[in-house]
Amino acid sequence: MINYRVVFNIMGRLLIIESIFMLLSALLPVIYNEPDLSPILISTGITFCFGIALTLLIKKSKTQFGKREGYIIVSLVWVVFSFFGALPFYLSHYIPSFTDAFFETISGFTTTGASILNDIEALPHGMLFWRSIIQWMGGMGIIVLSIAILPMLGIGGMQLFIAEVPGLSPDKLHPKIKETAKRLWGIYVLFTIAEIIFLLLGGMNLFDSICHSFTTMATGGFSTKQASIAYYNSSYIHYVIVVFMFIAGTNFTLSYFALKLNFKKIWKNEEFKFYFYVIAVYTLLITIDLYIHHSQTLKIAFRDSLFQVVSIVTTTGFVTADYLSWLPFLGIAIFTLMFFGGSSGSTGGGIKMVRILLVLKNSLYELKRLVHPNAVIPIQLNKKTVSQEIILNVLAFIVFYILLFAIGVIIMSAVGLNLDSSMGAVAATLGNIGPGIGSVGPMFNFAHVHPIGKWVLSFFMIVGRLELFTVLILFSPSFWKK
Amino acid sequence: MINYRVVFNIMGRLLIIESIFMLLSALLPVIYNEPDLSPILISTGITFCFGIALTLLIKKSKTQFGKREGYIIVSLVWVVFSFFGALPFYLSHYIPSFTDAFFETISGFTTTGASILNDIEALPHGMLFWRSIIQWMGGMGIIVLSIAILPMLGIGGMQLFIAEVPGLSPDKLHPKIKETAKRLWGIYVLFTIAEIIFLLLGGMNLFDSICHSFTTMATGGFSTKQASIAYYNSSYIHYVIVVFMFIAGTNFTLSYFALKLNFKKIWKNEEFKFYFYVIAVYTLLITIDLYIHHSQTLKIAFRDSLFQVVSIVTTTGFVTADYLSWLPFLGIAIFTLMFFGGSSGSTGGGIKMVRILLVLKNSLYELKRLVHPNAVIPIQLNKKTVSQEIILNVLAFIVFYILLFAIGVIIMSAVGLNLDSSMGAVAATLGNIGPGIGSVGPMFNFAHVHPIGKWVLSFFMIVGRLELFTVLILFSPSFWKK
Repeated sequence: MINYRVVFNIMGRLLIIESIFMLLSALLPVIYNEPDLSPILISTGITFCFGIALTLLIKKSKTQFGKREGYIIVSLVWVVFSFFGALPFYLSHYIPSFTDAFFETISGFTTTGASILNDIEALPHGMLFWRSIIQWMGGMGIIVLSIAILPMLGIGGMQLFIAEVPGLSPDKLHPKIKETAKRLWGIYVLFTIAEIIFLLLGGMNLFDSICHSFTTMATGGFSTKQASIAYYNSSYIHYVIVVFMFIAGTNFTLSYFALKLNFKKIWKNEEFKFYFYVIAVYTLLITIDLYIHHSQTLKIAFRDSLFQVVSIVTTTGFVTADYLSWLPFLGIAIFTLMFFGGSSGSTGGGIKMVRILLVLKNSLYELKRLVHPNAVIPIQLNKKTVSQEIILNVLAFIVFYILLFAIGVIIMSAVGLNLDSSMGAVAATLGNIGPGIGSVGPMFNFAHVHPIGKWVLSFFMIVGRLELFTVLILFSPSFWKK
Repeated sequence: MINYRVVFNIMGRLLIIESIFMLLSALLPVIYNEPDLSPILISTGITFCFGIALTLLIKKSKTQFGKREGYIIVSLVWVVFSFFGALPFYLSHYIPSFTDAFFETISGFTTTGASILNDIEALPHGMLFWRSIIQWMGGMGIIVLSIAILPMLGIGGMQLFIAEVPGLSPDKLHPKIKETAKRLWGIYVLFTIAEIIFLLLGGMNLFDSICHSFTTMATGGFSTKQASIAYYNSSYIHYVIVVFMFIAGTNFTLSYFALKLNFKKIWKNEEFKFYFYVIAVYTLLITIDLYIHHSQTLKIAFRDSLFQVVSIVTTTGFVTADYLSWLPFLGIAIFTLMFFGGSSGSTGGGIKMVRILLVLKNSLYELKRLVHPNAVIPIQLNKKTVSQEIILNVLAFIVFYILLFAIGVIIMSAVGLNLDSSMGAVAATLGNIGPGIGSVGPMFNFAHVHPIGKWVLSFFMIVGRLELFTVLILFSPSFWKK
C-alpha cells in the first residue's frame, strides 16, 4: 500500500517553501512601485493556505515511507509547484491563458527555458523576478534530486558514481542527505553570488545581474530580455556567462573539489574530460566555419560559437547568435548537441555526458570483442569496471529517450508543426534546453504551438528533468502492484 | 598476418560468377534487338578476365584462412562487384557519369533501391534486366551472409538465434554451410518463381514480372517503371507484391518451416510476431487516418497504407502512394518505420526487428528492476534467456547506427541538402530502403545529390547492408594489429 498521507503531508511542506519564494517576489512591485503586487500576494496566499492545510490536516503517519512514495512525491512536486507557480502570471493577466502560464512555469521549474512570451520586456520586475527565481529553485531541486535522492531510488547518472566510483560519491562529501544538500546548496549560492558580482562589474544592472545569475546556475536560460544575452554588446558579459554555464553543467561534487583546489581529481574524471572535449571540438569546428563562410572576425566567430555550444550542451539555452542563420549543417551540428546534455550531478538536463560516454565506450569495446572473441574486455570508467547492469540501465534510458522523442515528433507534427519544428520542440523540451530549431528556434518562441502540444511538451519537460525513469515507472503496472 | 592471396583468389572466383550473370543480361538485347549488346558483352569480358586473372595468377595458399580474411572479403566483394557491375550502365552511356553508375549499382547490390534515374522507361531491356538481377544477386548474397557467414564472424541478428535458440539455428537446417546456402537459395528461387507466376496471372508481362520478382524477393525495390508499382492500377498486383515483400522480410529459416507446414514454430517466434504486429499497428493507424482525412475509400486507404508500411518496413522501397503528400505526421510515422528494418535472416536491411525488440524488452525490464531492485530479471527471447553480452552487442549496433546517421545528416546538409532530405537520404541508404523523405522522397530520386554525397551514401549502403560491424571493424586498429 502506498502511504498517501506522507505524500500529501510532504507536498504541503514543500508548498509552504514555494510560497516563501513567491513572497520574495512581492518585494519587487514594492521597490519599483509596479501594479503586480496584489496578484503576487494573492498567489502567495493561495499557495501558503494549501500548504498549511495539507500539512496540518493530513498528519504524517509514522508507518512506511519508502521508494514508491519517493517516486510519487518527486514526480508530483514538479506538477504541483508549476500549478501554483503559474498563478502570479495568470492572475496578473500578463499571461492570460492558463495553458501558457503553466507552460512558462513548468519550463521554469524544469530549468528548460522554453518561453511563450513575445515581449519579455513588457513584464514588470516582479514577474521577471518570479520567472527567474522559479528556475533557480528548479536548479536547487535538481541538485538535491540528482545527487541525493534519485540515486536512492536507483535512478540517474550519479548512481554510476555511487556504484562505481566511491571517491566521487556524495557520501564522501557528507554521509547525511541533509548535510549533502546543504553543502551543495552552499556551493550553488556561492557561484550565484559570484556571477552576480562579475556581471555587475561588466556594467549589467543589479536586477538583471541577479535574474541572469539565477537562470545561469540553474542552466535554465530565461532572460529578462527578449533578445536574450544578444541584448548585451559586451564580450565580457558573454564570457562571464559562458564560464558560469560551464560550471553549472559540471558535476557539483567536482566543483566542491575545485573549491578545495583539488584539480587533479577533476582532470582524472572521465565525464568531465569528455564534457570538455565535446565543447572544444564543436567550438573549434564551428569557429572555423563561421570565420570562413560568414566572414566574421575570428574573435566574434569564436565568442559566438563557444557561447552557443556551451549554452546548448549545458542545456541552458541562452542565445547570442541565431544558429539557424548559419550554414544549414552548422544548425544541424548544434541540433546534435541537444542530445548530449550536461554532466551528471549538474543542473544540466539531456541524456548526460556520462551516458553518452559509456555507450560510446561499449561500442568501441564491441569492435575489440569481435576481433578477440575470447578475451574478457570490461568497460571501465575512471579506472573502475562498470557493471553490465549499469550499461543495461543506460541502454534502457537511451531507448526510452529515443522512443519519447519519436512519439513526441509524431504528436507535434499532428498538432501542426513541420518536421524541423517538431524535432526542435521535442529535443528542446525533453532535454530541458529551451530554444530548438525551426519555428521554435532561437529567434522564436513556443507561443504559436497548439495547446495540446503545449501540454505534451510540458509532460516532456518533467520526464526529461526527472531522468525519465522517475516518471515512466509510474506508468509501469508492477509499480502499483501489491 | 592477413592472407591476401586467399582474399584475391576468392574475389576472382566471385567475379567469374558476376560475369555469368552479366552474360545472362546479354540475352535481352538479342531477344529485343536493342543496341546495348556490345557494352554488356564488353563489361562481361572485362569482369571475366579480371576474375580469371585473379584466380589463376594468385594461387590460394593452403595456410591460414580465418575471420580477418572473412571480414575483408565480405566488405570488399560489395565494392568490387559494384565497380564491375557499373560497367554496363557506364559503357552504354545510359548513365554517363561513373559516380552515378556506381551509385545505381551499389544501390542494387545492397538491395537498397535508391536510384539516380530520371526516366527509367528510356532504358533498354538489357539494362533494366541487369539492374534487377543485381538486386537479386545482392539478396542471394545477403541470405548466405546473414545466415551462414556473418554468425561465424560473430556479427548479425542471426547470431542471436544461434547462441540462444538452437531450434531455429541454420545448423538444424543442415550442418554444412554449403548445404545451408543451397537450401536457402532453393527457397529464394522457389519464391521468386512463385511471384513471377502470380504476377503473370495478374496481367503483368513476363519481362516486368521477372524483374519485379527479382527485386521484391531481394527487398530491393528497383522497378522497371518510373512510377514504381503505382504504374499498375490493379489491386491484385499490389497485394501479390505485398505478400512477397512480407515473405522476403521474414527470416528465411522460418519460411523453410512454413514450407514444411510447421506453422506453430513460426507463431512461437517472437521476432516474427513483433514484425507482424508492427505492420498491423502502423497499417491500422494510417488506414484510419487516410480514410478520415484524405476521403479515400476504405479499400484504397487500406491497400495503400498496407503497401507502404510493408514496403518500408521490409526495406524494399516500392511505391504505390506518395506518403509525403499525406498529412505531415503520417509521413513522419513512415519515416520512423525506416528505423525498424526486416527480420534477421531475411533479405531486409535496417536495424532489424529482433534488435528493436530486445532493446524495448530491456527498457521495460529496467522499470521492473527499479521496482524490484533485488530481483534478477533476465531478458528472454523465445523463452530462452538472452545473455548480457548479446544485449551489449545490440546496444553497440544501435549506437553506431545513430552515430552514422547523425554524421551522415551533417555531411549531407554540408553538401547542400536541407534537413528533411538529409535525414531521408541517410535513413534510406543506411537502412537499404530506397526512397526517403524531402527531396529524395518517393516521387523523386537521388540524381540531384552532390557527387561527394553520392559516394558517402554509397558507403552507408554497404555499411548498413553488412550489419555495420563487418565494415567498421576494418577501421578498428586492433583488427590490423599483430
